[in-house]
Amino acid sequence: MSEITEIPPRSGAAFRLAKGQVLQVIDPEGMQVSDLLAYAADDVREVISNGRTFDYEETISLTTGNVLWSNRSNPMLTIIEDSVGRHDFLLTPCSEATFRHFYKDKPVHRGCFGNLAEALAPYGVEPDAIPTAFNVFMNVPVDGASGKLEVLPPTTSPGDFLRLRAECDLVIGLTACSAYDSNGGSFRPIHYRIEG
Amino acid sequence: MSEITEIPPRSGAAFRLAKGQVLQVIDPEGMQVSDLLAYAADDVREVISNGRTFDYEETISLTTGNVLWSNRSNPMLTIIEDSVGRHDFLLTPCSEATFRHFYKDKPVHRGCFGNLAEALAPYGVEPDAIPTAFNVFMNVPVDGASGKLEVLPPTTSPGDFLRLRAECDLVIGLTACSAYDSNGGSFRPIHYRIEG
Repeated sequence: MSEITEIPPRSGAAFRLAKGQVLQVIDPEGMQVSDLLAYAADDVREVISNGRTFDYEETISLTTGNVLWSNRSNPMLTIIEDSVGRHDFLLTPCSEATFRHFYKDKPVHRGCFGNLAEALAPYGVEPDAIPTAFNVFMNVPVDGASGKLEVLPPTTSPGDFLRLRAECDLVIGLTACSAYDSNGGSFRPIHYRIEG
Repeated sequence: MSEITEIPPRSGAAFRLAKGQVLQVIDPEGMQVSDLLAYAADDVREVISNGRTFDYEETISLTTGNVLWSNRSNPMLTIIEDSVGRHDFLLTPCSEATFRHFYKDKPVHRGCFGNLAEALAPYGVEPDAIPTAFNVFMNVPVDGASGKLEVLPPTTSPGDFLRLRAECDLVIGLTACSAYDSNGGSFRPIHYRIEG
């Protein structure tokens, strides 16, 4: 079994994931969110796209068997195992601006956006090239009739996980989320492991 | 009253919209979709973002009073009048790849994606910088419980329209949609008018 890497609370990481390798994202203590981005390693202008994914998968609820597609309509990651079944692909990573907007009485934090921007910079990814992330474990119910959405705490228990297989050589960005609402105000670590 | 410009069936256009001007998008015959993109005129790396918009507006159903936000968390367009109340911000523009995916027995078309890429190229927008569009009049109901979505014909009648006010100087991309499902297989023109 490959070793586990910890992403400390309110921080982020970036790393390569080769085609065929499996990324396991683990919520070690429960109730934490991890924003995930994937770029094509050979040209980071190719990136996961929520719009292409919703179109091809014909759902906004993504779980085992679903594929995360790129802006160029290529498969990037396939979800091969999911102990939770509740993730979000609607919302962008929290940022200084979202802290100012939603948490006026709390200290501003650079958020997952700032953490991803710093971690991905060595791979040539500019901040403006950070799209809507695939928010692992994030619990965002949508009312189909009104369209209204809510951000609720994750339904995860300690040890819950998601496993995704790389369909091409990727650069991955991954965080332990920094926003209050997405994790119920608890700022916990995220664990990940690369298999294969 | 300013003059009307026609976007012919299965084509696209790009033009500047100054801060404070109002763009009226009209469905002259009914049952047609128009993919809309907006970029900051002084730096096209800033672009409308469905994720930021869903986050700040707290809904996926956008109508009068809602703002379309940029990837830098700035307001780009405010919807000031809407005779329809049903638009989509989940799905990416149809493209050669989506035609191959969804319409295997039909001729491949470059779609709204190709039309937008050509129209926006003179403004320095690369194809990879085309995100999920705001799909005016597009009818994409989502089942809140399952997450499943459908693409149904628009509910528009001839003359239905949407009016959006520019909150900064913009470059707009706009199409008359090329895909079969989004407009019930009728390929009709779109009209637009710039006020102010």
